[in-house]
Formats: sequence, C-alpha cells, structure tokens
Amino acid sequence: MRLRNKPWAREKIDAHPQYIIPESFDVKGHWHDVFGNNNPIHIEVGTGKGQFVTGMAKQNPDINYIGIELYESVIVSALDLLIEAEVPNLKLLNVDGSDLLNYFEKGEVKQVYLNFSDPWPKTRHTKRRLTYKSFLNLYEELLPEGGEVHFKTDNQALFEYSLKSFSEYGMLLTYVSLDLHNSKFEGNVMTEYEEKFSAKGQRIYRSEAKFQPHL
Amino acid sequence: MRLRNKPWAREKIDAHPQYIIPESFDVKGHWHDVFGNNNPIHIEVGTGKGQFVTGMAKQNPDINYIGIELYESVIVSALDLLIEAEVPNLKLLNVDGSDLLNYFEKGEVKQVYLNFSDPWPKTRHTKRRLTYKSFLNLYEELLPEGGEVHFKTDNQALFEYSLKSFSEYGMLLTYVSLDLHNSKFEGNVMTEYEEKFSAKGQRIYRSEAKFQPHL
Repeated sequence: MRLRNKPWAREKIDAHPQYIIPESFDVKGHWHDVFGNNNPIHIEVGTGKGQFVTGMAKQNPDINYIGIELYESVIVSALDLLIEAEVPNLKLLNVDGSDLLNYFEKGEVKQVYLNFSDPWPKTRHTKRRLTYKSFLNLYEELLPEGGEVHFKTDNQALFEYSLKSFSEYGMLLTYVSLDLHNSKFEGNVMTEYEEKFSAKGQRIYRSEAKFQPHL
Repeated sequence: MRLRNKPWAREKIDAHPQYIIPESFDVKGHWHDVFGNNNPIHIEVGTGKGQFVTGMAKQNPDINYIGIELYESVIVSALDLLIEAEVPNLKLLNVDGSDLLNYFEKGEVKQVYLNFSDPWPKTRHTKRRLTYKSFLNLYEELLPEGGEVHFKTDNQALFEYSLKSFSEYGMLLTYVSLDLHNSKFEGNVMTEYEEKFSAKGQRIYRSEAKFQPHL
C-alpha cells in the first residue's frame, strides 16, 4: 500500500501501550498474561489497517488475536479501529515480521494468518515474500506441531508460488479455494484490500497449510 | 464426453493391432520392444480422441507415448489421428486405467499425463477421480522414483481437490499455473476440450507433481 508520512504516528502509538504492546515489554512467553486468559493466540503477519484482525476478534471472542505491522503510518489506522471496537481479545505489535522469534516462544501462537501480502513479483525479491521458506521456518518455530498458516491473496502469481513453497517445505495443503467469494467457505472476514479487489471482480485465492513432523 | 454408439468400433480396433496394441499381447515389461528403441515412455490416462498425445508425439520424437482409453467409441477417433499422423513413437491401449499394473512394470513409464479428466463432482464419486489416492498409488507403482504426474483441467473444483490430493499423498508440487494460456509455459499441446473451453474464455489450470521417497 502507499505509505503516507504521518509524523505524529510514533507519538500516538506510544500513547496507547494497552493496544499496541511496546517493544520494551517482556512479552515473549507471557502473552497469556497480556490477555489475562489462556485462550489460543492467532497472529496476522502484515496486519495493515487492521480490518481483518478486528473482524476476526469480534467474530471469535474465545481466541486472542495479535496484529503485527511494521509500518507506523499504517498501524495507527489499525489502532483507531481497535479503540473503536473495544475488543479485549486483540492487541497490536509494531515490529518487523522477521523478528517474530524475539516476541513469541515456541508453541505460543496457534495459527498464522497472511492476507494480501506484498507479492514482490521480481525474482530477485523472492526472499521477501511472506511465504518464502525462511518465513515458513519462522512460523514453524512459533507454532506447535500441526500448526497452520492461513493465506489469502488476489495475486495469482503469489498464490501459485506459495502453493509450491508450502509443498516444498513439506507442509500439507488442507484447503485450497481458487475463488473464495464463490465458494462454500463460511465466516470469511474481508480485509480492506479484499473488499476493493473483489468489488472489481477479481478472484480471491485462499489456502490452509499445515506443518508436518520433520523426518 | 458424450459417447456415441459405434458398433463397428471393435472391429476397427482389432484391424489395427500395430496402433492399438491388443490386450492379448504380452506387453508388460516389453514396451521397448514394441517401440523398437529404449526411449522414455510417457502415458496419458484417458486419452480421449487423442489430439494431445498425437501432438506430443510429433513434438517430441525421442519420447514414446502411449494413449490409454477405455471407451472403444472414443479410441477409434484417436486411431484415425494416429493413422493420419504416421508417428512411430505413439501407440494406443484400449484398457481401463485401473488395470494399468497388468500392462506395465514398475519404472517402465517415465511420466503420466492426465488431461481434462472427468471431474466426478459428487462427493460419493470421489474415488473415481483420476487424482484420487488409489490412482496416485497406481501411477507411483508404474513410475521410477521421482516420477511425475502432469495434470491439466478447466474444472476449478477438480483442480482444488487434486492439489490437496497430491499434497496429502506426499507428492511435491513443482509447477502450478492458474491460467495456463496466459502464462509463460512453452510447448503446450492442447486437447480437443482445451481448445473448446479456452475459446469460451475459460481458464485452464495445470500442475506438475512429483512422487517422493516414502518414509
């Protein structure tokens, strides 16, 4: 997405530590204390303006959600949504996805969502795609055995790439839809992008892939 | 496809044993004698009217092709194409796909093609789909280690199902196209169906999946 310069963003983020957990907090291994319960924790990597994760938190009050977004100028929009929604089971984290191991212990996250991630279409940028093997390895480190990655995109090339990447990593494909909005899938929560693209008649692709025991 | 009754089909098939290898021939383990060379053998299961396999045989003279088709009234059309094409590296076999083990030894087939297979959309017919696990097991029995199944279809639900089925079987997805005719794939040979459906603007899906060593 286009990034607008918002010089006030940092200040606003720092003013709401109850919603956007400060990096300085010792959260690794202590997320259940942050939420005050033992419900399972799902994270969205690249949460953008937060519509998906906020919608999911409303829909599933017994699951704790954490929206992870690197860009300050974007996460402040998610913060606005969260302040308005007043859902106790949602927190935000303003950090880089590749640093996730600093914030979560093995098994602390039960599910990972990737929605409309940057497709990085150039081959030389393959390693930046959030479904590249180094990221899959990262998610596997966070999840318990059998943990799942749920992925949505409108980008055909990224979806093709990601199916191969999941397979090459040894993950099991348990769900594939090549046209989500014309499928039987229930309870879909749309992201901002998804609303925009699907209104243009663009297909939405969705997959679920599960980590399997290594040999 | 709609099957027309062609009472003369059996007679015509029997009259061309040099093209449609008779079931009575002891071919298992002897296909290289049939072709008179040691080139690799690729088979198409459900070859229909034979346009794909004939085109492939013309395009790749150093590969031997065998088109397998159960229906007499359909394989006679493939026979006509083959007689006209005069390609020495193509034979036909008028047998049921589920009986393949009677006709090939382990490793005798280097690659399996499935093109526009019957989607069998009803759940109770899942077992009849040519990408169901029992068929994958059959192909694995024919192929050497690392052998591949190349699959094309215009049927979205069958493609979704098949990707999951390949994955569940432990196969590695090495190629996925969600819009073959608008991709960079080179050397595509179209089937009769493919020409018809793509002319209507229908997307063609294509995958390659590779068998992997079992644990």
